[in-house]
Amino acid sequence: MDQSVFLKKFVRPDSLEFQREFLENGRLQSVPEERIIASEGDKLAHFPLVVDGLVRVYKIGETGREITLYHIGPGEGCILSASCLLSDEPFPALAETVEDSLLILVPRNVFKDWIDRYKAWREYVFRLLARRLGAILTTIEEVAFMRMDARIAAYLMKESQKKGPKLPLTHGDIARELGTAREVVSRILKDFERRGYLHLSRKSIEIVDAQKLRRTMRLAHEPGKYLTA
Amino acid sequence: MDQSVFLKKFVRPDSLEFQREFLENGRLQSVPEERIIASEGDKLAHFPLVVDGLVRVYKIGETGREITLYHIGPGEGCILSASCLLSDEPFPALAETVEDSLLILVPRNVFKDWIDRYKAWREYVFRLLARRLGAILTTIEEVAFMRMDARIAAYLMKESQKKGPKLPLTHGDIARELGTAREVVSRILKDFERRGYLHLSRKSIEIVDAQKLRRTMRLAHEPGKYLTA
Repeated sequence: MDQSVFLKKFVRPDSLEFQREFLENGRLQSVPEERIIASEGDKLAHFPLVVDGLVRVYKIGETGREITLYHIGPGEGCILSASCLLSDEPFPALAETVEDSLLILVPRNVFKDWIDRYKAWREYVFRLLARRLGAILTTIEEVAFMRMDARIAAYLMKESQKKGPKLPLTHGDIARELGTAREVVSRILKDFERRGYLHLSRKSIEIVDAQKLRRTMRLAHEPGKYLTA
Repeated sequence: MDQSVFLKKFVRPDSLEFQREFLENGRLQSVPEERIIASEGDKLAHFPLVVDGLVRVYKIGETGREITLYHIGPGEGCILSASCLLSDEPFPALAETVEDSLLILVPRNVFKDWIDRYKAWREYVFRLLARRLGAILTTIEEVAFMRMDARIAAYLMKESQKKGPKLPLTHGDIARELGTAREVVSRILKDFERRGYLHLSRKSIEIVDAQKLRRTMRLAHEPGKYLTA
């Protein structure tokens, strides 16, 4: 995908003028995997759009544990960046490439100017925003209401829809995704293996009984069950 | 506070035309306390602004437990409503008045039209948005990384800054605020009382040793400590 495909497919320009400005001002940049593109406290100079690849936005807690807020895939922009640029606030999280990625960087003033001048750009940014707010609320619900074993089951099922039953995930990957400790993930995965839901090997997890794993997803917190730390 | 005070103080109109339209189109409505003003799945007809009073936006989990996403106080609008109106998505939570409240209701089409036509309105909505996103991320961090005893301590300290050391709160109030079970809140509060941090009586909680309570706020999750359900 190049800039003009990105523009037509996702932003849907409402004028030739905007189309021209988008191609002129949006700078393409390749970023290798596992590179931090924004840190907590940064004053942002650009609004980043993902053409190819994947960016993870996350927080680190006091004990060094991480929790993923959301991922930004092809066609999407980082809504937390939009919010920071529009309000002149520093970036409140970390953003890191998960894969080799191709980004379009729209300079701060251009981003704001387009919000004022182009309805198509406003609508694009608001669409992103609404979808993302929904995803963030789902995260809050899961973290607050679901037991950790249910959250791990839900995460594995979601990943297997994209990648098939054999998932190239380490226990540490899952811990970082869900904001828990690796020991907790290992304990729960071993329990799942013992029950015959999945098979563990070095650097991969194979789902053996998707139906039983799916049933585990429905476990909500109950008072007296302390399975969440 | 009336509509024109609200407008000048918070929205800061950029034209007489906008000022006139705001006063013409924004309908004032009194809502008594504990009234649901939007439910999950609602198609919203208005963007609500709070002139006086307080609105709580929250989610209910499968077990019936609630978690507060944020409060909307005087001068603020509901950003989740803005996002739904702009994206034509249904409302994904519940909004309920905590106190007798006075709202300004801006009809859906007027709200969208102003976003296109008035920079002052766009900036007002974006300011709300950025502040709110920050608050929601803080909620995710607290839910994911802090132990429930630390979250209760933090909540009591925050409330006492507004209302003094004697807080008119029930255990159920705190449970609804933090997304946990009342039994869990009662157990932790009794533990705090035993340690001399506070004194419990019917329908109120008095903070006796704020310094010790504050120290409790720093407890993060550690693997093997299951104090969160």
